[in-house]
Amino acid sequence: MGAEQGIRAVVLLSGGLDSATALAWAREQGWHCHALTVAYGQRHEAELAAAARVAAGLGAHEHRYMHVDLGSLGGSALTDPGIAVPEAATSGIPVTYVPARNTIMLSLALAWAEVLGARAIVIGVNAVDYSGYPDCRPEFIAAFARMAQLATRAGAEGGTLEVVAPLQHWSKAQIVTEGTRLGVDFAQTWSCYKGGAIHCGKCGTCVERREAFLQAGASDPTVYESTPPIPKGPEVNH
Amino acid sequence: MGAEQGIRAVVLLSGGLDSATALAWAREQGWHCHALTVAYGQRHEAELAAAARVAAGLGAHEHRYMHVDLGSLGGSALTDPGIAVPEAATSGIPVTYVPARNTIMLSLALAWAEVLGARAIVIGVNAVDYSGYPDCRPEFIAAFARMAQLATRAGAEGGTLEVVAPLQHWSKAQIVTEGTRLGVDFAQTWSCYKGGAIHCGKCGTCVERREAFLQAGASDPTVYESTPPIPKGPEVNH
Repeated sequence: MGAEQGIRAVVLLSGGLDSATALAWAREQGWHCHALTVAYGQRHEAELAAAARVAAGLGAHEHRYMHVDLGSLGGSALTDPGIAVPEAATSGIPVTYVPARNTIMLSLALAWAEVLGARAIVIGVNAVDYSGYPDCRPEFIAAFARMAQLATRAGAEGGTLEVVAPLQHWSKAQIVTEGTRLGVDFAQTWSCYKGGAIHCGKCGTCVERREAFLQAGASDPTVYESTPPIPKGPEVNH
Repeated sequence: MGAEQGIRAVVLLSGGLDSATALAWAREQGWHCHALTVAYGQRHEAELAAAARVAAGLGAHEHRYMHVDLGSLGGSALTDPGIAVPEAATSGIPVTYVPARNTIMLSLALAWAEVLGARAIVIGVNAVDYSGYPDCRPEFIAAFARMAQLATRAGAEGGTLEVVAPLQHWSKAQIVTEGTRLGVDFAQTWSCYKGGAIHCGKCGTCVERREAFLQAGASDPTVYESTPPIPKGPEVNH
Protein backbone atom coordinates (compact mmCIF):
# COMPACT_ATOMS: atom_id res chain seq x y z
CA MET A 1 0.00 0.00 0.00
CA GLY A 2 3.10 2.19 -0.11
CA ALA A 3 3.52 5.38 1.86
CA GLU A 4 -0.12 6.47 2.12
CA GLN A 5 -0.68 8.97 4.90
CA GLY A 6 -3.45 9.22 7.46
CA ILE A 7 -4.72 5.69 7.08
CA ARG A 8 -6.01 4.02 10.19
CA ALA A 9 -4.83 0.50 10.84
CA VAL A 10 -5.58 -2.02 13.57
CA VAL A 11 -2.35 -3.83 14.46
CA LEU A 12 -2.48 -7.10 16.36
CA LEU A 13 0.22 -6.86 19.00
CA SER A 14 1.18 -9.84 21.13
CA GLY A 15 4.34 -8.36 22.58
CA GLY A 16 6.68 -10.72 20.70
CA LEU A 17 9.37 -10.03 18.06
CA ASP A 18 7.05 -10.43 15.11
CA SER A 19 4.13 -8.23 16.06
CA ALA A 20 6.52 -5.52 17.33
CA THR A 21 8.20 -5.51 13.92
CA ALA A 22 4.82 -5.50 12.17
CA LEU A 23 3.80 -2.44 14.21
CA ALA A 24 7.06 -0.67 13.37
CA TRP A 25 6.50 -1.50 9.69
CA ALA A 26 2.96 -0.08 9.80
CA ARG A 27 4.22 3.07 11.51
CA GLU A 28 6.80 3.47 8.72
CA GLN A 29 3.92 3.48 6.23
CA GLY A 30 2.65 6.55 8.03
CA TRP A 31 -0.44 4.77 9.31
CA HIS A 32 -2.29 5.70 12.50
CA CYS A 33 -1.88 2.47 14.41
CA HIS A 34 -4.48 1.21 16.85
CA ALA A 35 -2.78 -1.68 18.60
CA LEU A 36 -4.91 -4.56 19.84
CA THR A 37 -3.69 -7.17 22.28
CA VAL A 38 -5.96 -10.15 22.72
CA ALA A 39 -5.68 -11.79 26.13
CA TYR A 40 -6.89 -15.29 25.36
CA GLY A 41 -5.92 -17.13 28.53
CA GLN A 42 -2.16 -17.30 28.01
CA ARG A 43 -0.45 -18.97 30.92
CA HIS A 44 1.57 -15.92 31.88
CA GLU A 45 1.23 -12.18 31.90
CA ALA A 46 4.73 -11.33 30.66
CA GLU A 47 3.56 -11.24 27.06
CA LEU A 48 0.70 -8.86 27.89
CA ALA A 49 2.99 -6.48 29.77
CA ALA A 50 5.47 -6.53 26.87
CA ALA A 51 2.71 -5.46 24.48
CA ALA A 52 2.08 -2.25 26.44
CA ARG A 53 5.81 -1.40 26.45
CA VAL A 54 6.11 -2.06 22.73
CA ALA A 55 3.00 -0.04 21.84
CA ALA A 56 4.27 2.95 23.79
CA GLY A 57 7.84 2.61 22.49
CA LEU A 58 6.78 2.46 18.84
CA GLY A 59 4.26 5.30 18.98
CA ALA A 60 0.98 3.47 18.58
CA HIS A 61 -1.87 5.97 18.53
CA GLU A 62 -3.80 3.82 21.02
CA HIS A 63 -3.45 0.40 22.64
CA ARG A 64 -6.30 -1.79 23.85
CA TYR A 65 -6.70 -5.21 25.36
CA MET A 66 -9.61 -7.51 24.67
CA HIS A 67 -10.22 -10.61 26.75
CA VAL A 68 -11.49 -13.94 25.42
CA ASP A 69 -11.30 -16.98 27.61
CA LEU A 70 -9.97 -19.59 25.20
CA GLY A 71 -8.47 -21.40 28.19
CA SER A 72 -11.93 -22.65 29.12
CA LEU A 73 -11.98 -24.58 25.83
CA GLY A 74 -8.62 -26.29 26.44
CA GLY A 75 -6.81 -28.09 23.65
CA SER A 76 -3.48 -26.21 23.75
CA ALA A 77 -0.33 -26.25 25.85
CA LEU A 78 -0.47 -22.45 25.85
CA THR A 79 -3.80 -22.26 27.62
CA ASP A 80 -4.22 -25.64 29.33
CA PRO A 81 -2.04 -26.33 32.40
CA GLY A 82 -2.64 -30.07 31.80
CA ILE A 83 -0.55 -30.03 28.59
CA ALA A 84 3.22 -29.55 28.95
CA VAL A 85 5.13 -27.07 26.78
CA PRO A 86 7.69 -29.20 24.93
CA GLU A 87 11.38 -28.28 24.94
CA ALA A 88 12.32 -30.21 21.81
CA ALA A 89 11.21 -29.52 18.26
CA THR A 90 8.24 -31.56 17.09
CA SER A 91 6.89 -32.50 13.69
CA GLY A 92 3.33 -31.77 12.51
CA ILE A 93 1.12 -29.27 14.29
CA PRO A 94 2.60 -28.61 17.75
CA VAL A 95 0.71 -28.82 21.07
CA THR A 96 1.30 -25.09 21.51
CA TYR A 97 -1.12 -24.48 18.64
CA VAL A 98 -4.17 -22.65 20.05
CA PRO A 99 -7.34 -23.67 18.17
CA ALA A 100 -8.58 -20.88 15.90
CA ARG A 101 -6.40 -18.29 17.65
CA ASN A 102 -5.55 -16.20 14.62
CA THR A 103 -9.11 -16.44 13.32
CA ILE A 104 -10.42 -15.09 16.61
CA MET A 105 -7.79 -12.37 16.90
CA LEU A 106 -8.36 -11.23 13.33
CA SER A 107 -12.13 -11.24 13.94
CA LEU A 108 -11.77 -8.98 16.95
CA ALA A 109 -9.45 -6.73 14.96
CA LEU A 110 -12.10 -6.70 12.22
CA ALA A 111 -14.76 -5.49 14.66
CA TRP A 112 -12.53 -2.66 15.85
CA ALA A 113 -11.45 -1.81 12.30
CA GLU A 114 -15.08 -1.48 11.34
CA VAL A 115 -15.86 0.85 14.25
CA LEU A 116 -12.75 2.96 13.51
CA GLY A 117 -13.22 3.02 9.75
CA ALA A 118 -9.74 1.52 9.48
CA ARG A 119 -8.52 0.46 6.06
CA ALA A 120 -6.03 -2.17 7.16
CA ILE A 121 -5.56 -4.92 9.71
CA VAL A 122 -1.91 -5.79 10.30
CA ILE A 123 -0.80 -9.16 11.65
CA GLY A 124 2.77 -10.34 12.21
CA VAL A 125 2.52 -13.92 10.98
CA ASN A 126 5.68 -15.11 9.27
CA ALA A 127 7.27 -17.85 7.20
CA VAL A 128 8.67 -19.88 10.08
CA ASP A 129 5.24 -20.13 11.63
CA TYR A 130 3.76 -21.73 8.51
CA SER A 131 5.59 -24.94 9.18
CA GLY A 132 3.42 -25.84 12.12
CA TYR A 133 0.37 -23.61 12.46
CA PRO A 134 -2.39 -23.84 9.85
CA ASP A 135 -3.59 -20.33 10.66
CA CYS A 136 -0.25 -18.72 9.79
CA ARG A 137 -0.28 -19.81 6.13
CA PRO A 138 -0.64 -17.19 3.40
CA GLU A 139 -3.69 -18.99 2.00
CA PHE A 140 -5.40 -18.65 5.38
CA ILE A 141 -4.69 -14.91 5.52
CA ALA A 142 -6.03 -14.50 1.99
CA ALA A 143 -9.19 -16.47 2.83
CA PHE A 144 -9.73 -14.36 5.94
CA ALA A 145 -9.41 -11.19 3.87
CA ARG A 146 -12.01 -12.43 1.37
CA MET A 147 -14.38 -13.34 4.19
CA ALA A 148 -13.81 -9.98 5.93
CA GLN A 149 -14.73 -8.12 2.77
CA LEU A 150 -18.12 -9.88 2.77
CA ALA A 151 -18.61 -9.62 6.54
CA THR A 152 -18.50 -5.90 6.98
CA ARG A 153 -20.57 -2.81 6.48
CA ALA A 154 -17.65 -1.20 4.65
CA GLY A 155 -17.37 -4.17 2.32
CA ALA A 156 -21.13 -4.26 1.71
CA GLU A 157 -21.03 -0.56 0.90
CA GLY A 158 -18.12 -0.87 -1.53
CA GLY A 159 -15.17 0.02 0.72
CA THR A 160 -12.09 -2.08 1.13
CA LEU A 161 -10.25 -3.39 4.12
CA GLU A 162 -6.90 -5.03 3.61
CA VAL A 163 -5.43 -7.73 5.80
CA VAL A 164 -1.70 -7.08 5.68
CA ALA A 165 0.91 -9.57 6.83
CA PRO A 166 4.17 -7.71 6.08
CA LEU A 167 6.41 -10.39 7.62
CA GLN A 168 4.73 -13.19 5.75
CA HIS A 169 7.72 -14.19 3.68
CA TRP A 170 10.50 -13.18 6.05
CA SER A 171 12.64 -15.55 8.08
CA LYS A 172 13.10 -14.91 11.79
CA ALA A 173 16.59 -13.54 11.01
CA GLN A 174 15.11 -11.09 8.50
CA ILE A 175 12.59 -10.00 11.11
CA VAL A 176 15.42 -9.14 13.51
CA THR A 177 17.31 -7.29 10.78
CA GLU A 178 14.27 -5.33 9.57
CA GLY A 179 13.00 -4.73 13.11
CA THR A 180 16.37 -3.29 14.07
CA ARG A 181 16.33 -0.99 11.05
CA LEU A 182 12.81 0.12 11.99
CA GLY A 183 13.85 0.98 15.54
CA VAL A 184 12.27 -1.91 17.45
CA ASP A 185 13.76 -2.27 20.94
CA PHE A 186 13.76 -6.06 21.12
CA ALA A 187 14.66 -5.95 24.82
CA GLN A 188 11.06 -4.82 25.37
CA THR A 189 9.57 -7.84 23.58
CA TRP A 190 8.69 -11.23 25.02
CA SER A 191 8.76 -14.65 23.35
CA CYS A 192 9.06 -17.38 26.01
CA TYR A 193 6.18 -19.84 26.33
CA LYS A 194 7.01 -20.69 29.95
CA GLY A 195 5.84 -18.59 32.83
CA GLY A 196 9.13 -17.39 34.33
CA ALA A 197 10.35 -13.89 35.19
CA ILE A 198 12.97 -14.10 32.43
CA HIS A 199 13.12 -16.04 29.13
CA CYS A 200 13.85 -19.75 29.77
CA GLY A 201 16.13 -20.03 26.73
CA LYS A 202 15.07 -23.63 26.09
CA CYS A 203 11.47 -23.78 24.86
CA GLY A 204 10.80 -23.86 21.10
CA THR A 205 10.12 -20.16 20.85
CA CYS A 206 13.16 -19.19 22.97
CA VAL A 207 15.39 -21.36 20.78
CA GLU A 208 13.91 -19.75 17.70
CA ARG A 209 14.47 -16.30 19.20
CA ARG A 210 18.12 -17.09 19.99
CA GLU A 211 18.64 -18.50 16.49
CA ALA A 212 17.10 -15.41 14.91
CA PHE A 213 19.67 -13.08 16.49
CA LEU A 214 22.51 -15.50 15.73
CA GLN A 215 21.50 -15.83 12.08
CA ALA A 216 20.97 -12.07 11.74
CA GLY A 217 24.41 -11.47 13.21
CA ALA A 218 22.78 -9.11 15.71
CA SER A 219 23.42 -8.90 19.41
CA ASP A 220 20.61 -10.43 21.46
CA PRO A 221 19.46 -8.15 24.29
CA THR A 222 17.44 -10.94 25.93
CA VAL A 223 18.32 -12.26 29.39
CA TYR A 224 17.91 -16.06 29.35
CA GLU A 225 17.75 -18.45 32.29
CA SER A 226 20.02 -20.82 30.39
CA THR A 227 21.43 -21.07 26.89
CA PRO A 228 22.02 -24.73 26.02
CA PRO A 229 23.42 -25.52 22.57
CA ILE A 230 20.79 -25.07 19.88
CA PRO A 231 19.85 -28.46 18.41
CA LYS A 232 20.66 -29.02 14.75
CA GLY A 233 18.10 -30.52 12.43
CA PRO A 234 14.76 -29.68 10.89
CA GLU A 235 13.22 -26.29 11.34
CA VAL A 236 12.06 -25.71 14.89
CA ASN A 237 8.33 -25.65 15.37
CA HIS A 238 7.20 -23.55 18.27
CA MET B 1 -25.61 -33.94 5.71
CA GLY B 2 -28.75 -36.07 6.16
CA ALA B 3 -29.45 -38.25 9.15
CA GLU B 4 -25.88 -39.07 10.16
CA GLN B 5 -25.60 -40.27 13.75
CA GLY B 6 -23.07 -39.44 16.45
CA ILE B 7 -21.73 -36.31 14.81
CA ARG B 8 -20.70 -33.53 17.12
CA ALA B 9 -21.87 -30.06 16.25
CA VAL B 10 -21.30 -26.68 17.84
CA VAL B 11 -24.57 -24.73 17.67
CA LEU B 12 -24.57 -20.97 18.16
CA LEU B 13 -27.49 -20.23 20.44
CA SER B 14 -28.59 -16.68 21.15
CA GLY B 15 -31.89 -17.54 22.78
CA GLY B 16 -34.00 -16.14 19.92
CA LEU B 17 -36.43 -17.83 17.54
CA ASP B 18 -33.87 -18.57 14.87
CA SER B 19 -31.10 -20.17 16.86
CA ALA B 20 -33.62 -22.23 18.86
CA THR B 21 -35.00 -23.59 15.59
CA ALA B 22 -31.47 -24.22 14.29
CA LEU B 23 -30.69 -26.22 17.45
CA ALA B 24 -33.91 -28.24 17.07
CA TRP B 25 -32.99 -28.88 13.43
CA ALA B 26 -29.51 -30.10 14.39
CA ARG B 27 -30.98 -32.36 17.07
CA GLU B 28 -33.30 -33.85 14.43
CA GLN B 29 -30.21 -34.77 12.40
CA GLY B 30 -29.17 -36.88 15.39
CA TRP B 31 -26.16 -34.68 16.13
CA HIS B 32 -24.64 -34.26 19.57
CA CYS B 33 -25.15 -30.56 20.03
CA HIS B 34 -22.75 -28.40 22.01
CA ALA B 35 -24.56 -25.10 22.34
CA LEU B 36 -22.50 -21.92 22.54
CA THR B 37 -23.87 -18.59 23.66
CA VAL B 38 -21.60 -15.63 23.10
CA ALA B 39 -22.15 -12.82 25.58
CA TYR B 40 -20.85 -9.86 23.62
CA GLY B 41 -22.03 -6.98 25.74
CA GLN B 42 -25.72 -7.08 24.85
CA ARG B 43 -27.63 -4.45 26.72
CA HIS B 44 -29.78 -6.91 28.62
CA GLU B 45 -29.49 -10.37 30.10
CA ALA B 46 -32.91 -11.67 29.00
CA GLU B 47 -31.44 -13.15 25.84
CA LEU B 48 -28.70 -14.96 27.76
CA ALA B 49 -31.19 -16.46 30.23
CA ALA B 50 -33.39 -17.59 27.33
CA ALA B 51 -30.46 -19.45 25.79
CA ALA B 52 -30.07 -21.64 28.87
CA ARG B 53 -33.79 -22.49 28.90
CA VAL B 54 -33.75 -23.32 25.19
CA ALA B 55 -30.60 -25.48 25.43
CA ALA B 56 -32.10 -27.51 28.27
CA GLY B 57 -35.53 -27.76 26.64
CA LEU B 58 -34.16 -29.01 23.32
CA GLY B 59 -31.71 -31.54 24.76
CA ALA B 60 -28.39 -29.93 23.96
CA HIS B 61 -25.57 -32.19 25.15
CA GLU B 62 -23.85 -29.22 26.76
CA HIS B 63 -24.27 -25.44 26.90
CA ARG B 64 -21.51 -22.90 27.42
CA TYR B 65 -21.19 -19.16 27.52
CA MET B 66 -18.18 -17.25 26.24
CA HIS B 67 -17.71 -13.58 27.01
CA VAL B 68 -16.27 -11.01 24.61
CA ASP B 69 -16.57 -7.36 25.42
CA LEU B 70 -17.65 -5.91 22.09
CA GLY B 71 -19.38 -3.12 24.00
CA SER B 72 -15.98 -1.54 24.67
CA LEU B 73 -15.60 -1.03 20.91
CA GLY B 74 -18.98 0.71 20.52
CA GLY B 75 -20.50 1.24 17.10
CA SER B 76 -23.86 -0.49 17.64
CA ALA B 77 -27.18 0.29 19.28
CA LEU B 78 -27.11 -3.21 20.75
CA THR B 79 -23.95 -2.65 22.75
CA ASP B 80 -23.62 1.13 23.03
CA PRO B 81 -26.02 2.94 25.40
CA GLY B 82 -25.30 6.14 23.43
CA ILE B 83 -27.12 4.83 20.33
CA ALA B 84 -30.92 4.44 20.54
CA VAL B 85 -32.68 1.29 19.35
CA PRO B 86 -35.03 2.49 16.59
CA GLU B 87 -38.72 1.56 16.64
CA ALA B 88 -39.33 2.08 12.94
CA ALA B 89 -37.93 0.08 10.05
CA THR B 90 -34.82 1.56 8.45
CA SER B 91 -33.21 1.14 5.08
CA GLY B 92 -29.59 0.12 4.57
CA ILE B 93 -27.57 -1.43 7.37
CA PRO B 94 -29.37 -0.72 10.67
CA VAL B 95 -27.76 0.78 13.78
CA THR B 96 -28.46 -2.49 15.58
CA TYR B 97 -25.80 -4.11 13.40
CA VAL B 98 -22.92 -5.19 15.65
CA PRO B 99 -19.58 -4.92 13.82
CA ALA B 100 -18.19 -8.33 12.92
CA ARG B 101 -20.56 -10.08 15.34
CA ASN B 102 -21.19 -13.20 13.29
CA THR B 103 -17.52 -13.43 12.32
CA ILE B 104 -16.54 -13.37 15.98
CA MET B 105 -19.24 -15.81 17.08
CA LEU B 106 -18.36 -18.24 14.28
CA SER B 107 -14.65 -17.92 15.16
CA LEU B 108 -15.33 -18.84 18.78
CA ALA B 109 -17.50 -21.74 17.61
CA LEU B 110 -14.62 -22.77 15.35
CA ALA B 111 -12.22 -22.89 18.29
CA TRP B 112 -14.58 -25.07 20.29
CA ALA B 113 -15.36 -27.25 17.26
CA GLU B 114 -11.66 -27.86 16.83
CA VAL B 115 -11.19 -28.88 20.47
CA LEU B 116 -14.25 -31.17 20.35
CA GLY B 117 -13.47 -32.67 16.97
CA ALA B 118 -16.89 -31.45 15.83
CA ARG B 119 -17.78 -31.84 12.17
CA ALA B 120 -20.29 -29.02 11.95
CA ILE B 121 -20.95 -25.51 13.17
CA VAL B 122 -24.63 -24.54 13.05
CA ILE B 123 -25.78 -20.94 12.89
CA GLY B 124 -29.36 -19.70 12.64
CA VAL B 125 -28.95 -16.87 10.14
CA ASN B 126 -31.93 -16.50 7.83
CA ALA B 127 -33.27 -14.81 4.75
CA VAL B 128 -34.88 -11.84 6.47
CA ASP B 129 -31.59 -10.96 8.12
CA TYR B 130 -29.82 -10.67 4.76
CA SER B 131 -31.63 -7.49 3.98
CA GLY B 132 -29.72 -5.47 6.51
CA TYR B 133 -26.74 -7.34 7.93
CA PRO B 134 -23.77 -8.09 5.68
CA ASP B 135 -22.71 -10.99 7.88
CA CYS B 136 -26.01 -12.85 7.42
CA ARG B 137 -25.61 -13.25 3.65
CA PRO B 138 -25.08 -16.74 2.19
CA GLU B 139 -21.88 -15.57 0.47
CA PHE B 140 -20.49 -14.54 3.86
CA ILE B 141 -21.28 -17.95 5.38
CA ALA B 142 -19.64 -19.66 2.40
CA ALA B 143 -16.53 -17.47 2.69
CA PHE B 144 -16.29 -18.18 6.42
CA ALA B 145 -16.50 -21.92 5.72
CA ARG B 146 -13.66 -21.71 3.17
CA MET B 147 -11.54 -19.72 5.62
CA ALA B 148 -12.31 -22.15 8.46
CA GLN B 149 -11.15 -25.08 6.37
CA LEU B 150 -7.74 -23.40 5.99
CA ALA B 151 -7.58 -22.18 9.59
CA THR B 152 -7.81 -25.44 11.42
CA ARG B 153 -5.73 -28.44 12.34
CA ALA B 154 -8.52 -30.70 11.03
CA GLY B 155 -8.55 -28.86 7.71
CA ALA B 156 -4.75 -28.94 7.44
CA GLU B 157 -4.83 -32.68 8.10
CA GLY B 158 -7.53 -33.37 5.51
CA GLY B 159 -10.66 -33.39 7.66
CA THR B 160 -13.75 -31.34 6.98
CA LEU B 161 -15.81 -29.00 9.05
CA GLU B 162 -19.09 -27.76 7.64
CA VAL B 163 -20.68 -24.44 8.48
CA VAL B 164 -24.40 -25.17 8.30
CA ALA B 165 -27.06 -22.47 8.15
CA PRO B 166 -30.26 -24.53 7.91
CA LEU B 167 -32.59 -21.50 8.09
CA GLN B 168 -30.68 -19.63 5.41
CA HIS B 169 -33.47 -19.57 2.86
CA TRP B 170 -36.46 -19.63 5.21
CA SER B 171 -38.73 -16.70 5.96
CA LYS B 172 -39.52 -15.86 9.58
CA ALA B 173 -42.95 -17.50 9.08
CA GLN B 174 -41.30 -20.69 7.85
CA ILE B 175 -39.04 -20.65 10.89
CA VAL B 176 -42.08 -20.54 13.18
CA THR B 177 -43.75 -23.36 11.23
CA GLU B 178 -40.65 -25.58 11.14
CA GLY B 179 -39.72 -24.74 14.73
CA THR B 180 -43.20 -25.75 15.88
CA ARG B 181 -42.92 -29.04 14.00
CA LEU B 182 -39.51 -29.62 15.60
CA GLY B 183 -40.88 -29.06 19.10
CA VAL B 184 -39.43 -25.64 19.88
CA ASP B 185 -41.23 -23.98 22.82
CA PHE B 186 -41.17 -20.41 21.52
CA ALA B 187 -42.40 -19.09 24.87
CA GLN B 188 -38.88 -19.85 26.13
CA THR B 189 -37.17 -17.74 23.45
CA TRP B 190 -36.35 -14.03 23.53
CA SER B 191 -36.22 -11.53 20.67
CA CYS B 192 -36.70 -7.98 22.01
CA TYR B 193 -33.80 -5.55 21.61
CA LYS B 194 -34.94 -3.38 24.51
CA GLY B 195 -34.07 -4.19 28.09
CA GLY B 196 -37.52 -4.77 29.63
CA ALA B 197 -38.86 -7.68 31.67
CA ILE B 198 -41.23 -8.61 28.82
CA HIS B 199 -41.06 -8.09 25.04
CA CYS B 200 -41.77 -4.45 24.12
CA GLY B 201 -43.77 -5.38 21.02
CA LYS B 202 -42.59 -2.30 19.13
CA CYS B 203 -38.88 -2.58 18.26
CA GLY B 204 -37.88 -3.96 14.85
CA THR B 205 -37.26 -7.45 16.10
CA CYS B 206 -40.49 -7.57 18.16
CA VAL B 207 -42.48 -6.47 15.11
CA GLU B 208 -40.76 -9.12 13.05
CA ARG B 209 -41.53 -11.73 15.71
CA ARG B 210 -45.20 -10.78 15.80
CA GLU B 211 -45.40 -10.84 11.99
CA ALA B 212 -43.79 -14.29 11.88
CA PHE B 213 -46.51 -15.86 14.02
CA LEU B 214 -49.23 -13.98 12.11
CA GLN B 215 -47.90 -15.07 8.74
CA ALA B 216 -47.39 -18.64 9.92
CA GLY B 217 -50.97 -18.71 11.21
CA ALA B 218 -49.60 -19.88 14.55
CA SER B 219 -50.59 -18.65 17.98
CA ASP B 220 -47.94 -16.38 19.51
CA PRO B 221 -47.07 -17.38 23.09
CA THR B 222 -45.15 -14.13 23.70
CA VAL B 223 -46.32 -11.58 26.28
CA TYR B 224 -45.85 -8.08 24.79
CA GLU B 225 -45.90 -4.74 26.59
CA SER B 226 -47.96 -3.33 23.72
CA THR B 227 -49.04 -4.50 20.29
CA PRO B 228 -49.48 -1.47 18.04
CA PRO B 229 -50.57 -2.10 14.43
CA ILE B 230 -47.72 -3.51 12.36
CA PRO B 231 -46.59 -0.95 9.78
CA LYS B 232 -47.07 -1.87 6.14
CA GLY B 233 -44.33 -1.37 3.63
CA PRO B 234 -40.90 -2.72 2.83
CA GLU B 235 -39.49 -5.65 4.74
CA VAL B 236 -38.62 -4.72 8.31
CA ASN B 237 -34.94 -4.54 9.12
CA HIS B 238 -34.14 -5.37 12.68
